[in-house]
Amino acid sequence: MKATTLKDLFVEELKDIYHAEGQLIKALPKMAKAATCEDLKAGFEEHLAQTREHVKRLETIFESLDMPARGKKCEAMEGLIEEGGEAIDLEGDNDTRDAALIGAAQKVEHYEIATYGTLKAWARQLEMEDVVSLLKATLDEEKDTDDKLTELAMAGINEEAETEDEEEEVTARK
Amino acid sequence: MKATTLKDLFVEELKDIYHAEGQLIKALPKMAKAATCEDLKAGFEEHLAQTREHVKRLETIFESLDMPARGKKCEAMEGLIEEGGEAIDLEGDNDTRDAALIGAAQKVEHYEIATYGTLKAWARQLEMEDVVSLLKATLDEEKDTDDKLTELAMAGINEEAETEDEEEEVTARK
Repeated sequence: MKATTLKDLFVEELKDIYHAEGQLIKALPKMAKAATCEDLKAGFEEHLAQTREHVKRLETIFESLDMPARGKKCEAMEGLIEEGGEAIDLEGDNDTRDAALIGAAQKVEHYEIATYGTLKAWARQLEMEDVVSLLKATLDEEKDTDDKLTELAMAGINEEAETEDEEEEVTARK
Repeated sequence: MKATTLKDLFVEELKDIYHAEGQLIKALPKMAKAATCEDLKAGFEEHLAQTREHVKRLETIFESLDMPARGKKCEAMEGLIEEGGEAIDLEGDNDTRDAALIGAAQKVEHYEIATYGTLKAWARQLEMEDVVSLLKATLDEEKDTDDKLTELAMAGINEEAETEDEEEEVTARK
């Protein structure tokens, strides 16, 4: 990679996440369809709407840089989406598939949290304050989505913990 | 993927992160060598020592499950390591390369935070309390490493902000 300045690096990273968000828009409806828990299904659908907004924000940033919005193939995100695909196709019971979907989605969220966090820091260093605001709005939503996924996972755990009278079922799952 | 129970899923994820940590052990010395900032170099070296410990903890977990410690190729981590490789080979000035190295390392850390977080939640659900403790110890260290990388990035930013008298240089970098 040739990036002599921080601005070059910023643009490379912007192209990376633009491609990644595009891949996520294709993956989320499949994840929503594969989910059994209604809250998880709704969570994926809500995040799809947010992700469309994140793409628009990135396009605004490209525009402010006088550049066409163009993605760059992002190998890491492709690997993450593939893991999501494995969760979708999981041949197990519904609870296990939902657990796998949450796990895969949280990896995607953390990829985005790291990327938007870096982009925001660089935008601040480059004194592009309007861009910082746009990136911060998306970063906050990604963090919020990750927290909601953790809550859903923990809710499942609590539910399990409450079903002591169904211990046979729990044991069978181990 | 065939995983009929949460325990199956836990084992799959364990193999995934075991392979990922192995890849990271190979990558970190190269990242340390490529870093210019002494604190960043030291940070990568310290994290290499921690990562070796994380691998040992994973081996203890495999042992407690009466399973051989074996990894499963992790496409996402390969993509992330590749991004680290791009940062190492970056043909730019030293500050830009360090910024790219921090960005790449934070993506790796977030991948691990998501994975260990999920593993810990599943271990708790499976009532494997000793395993929960081992995973928590590693998770805390990954979060700590991510925080330290953010501090280093921010220290760089503050330094930039202080060099108002060197505005020419700053402008040239844009």
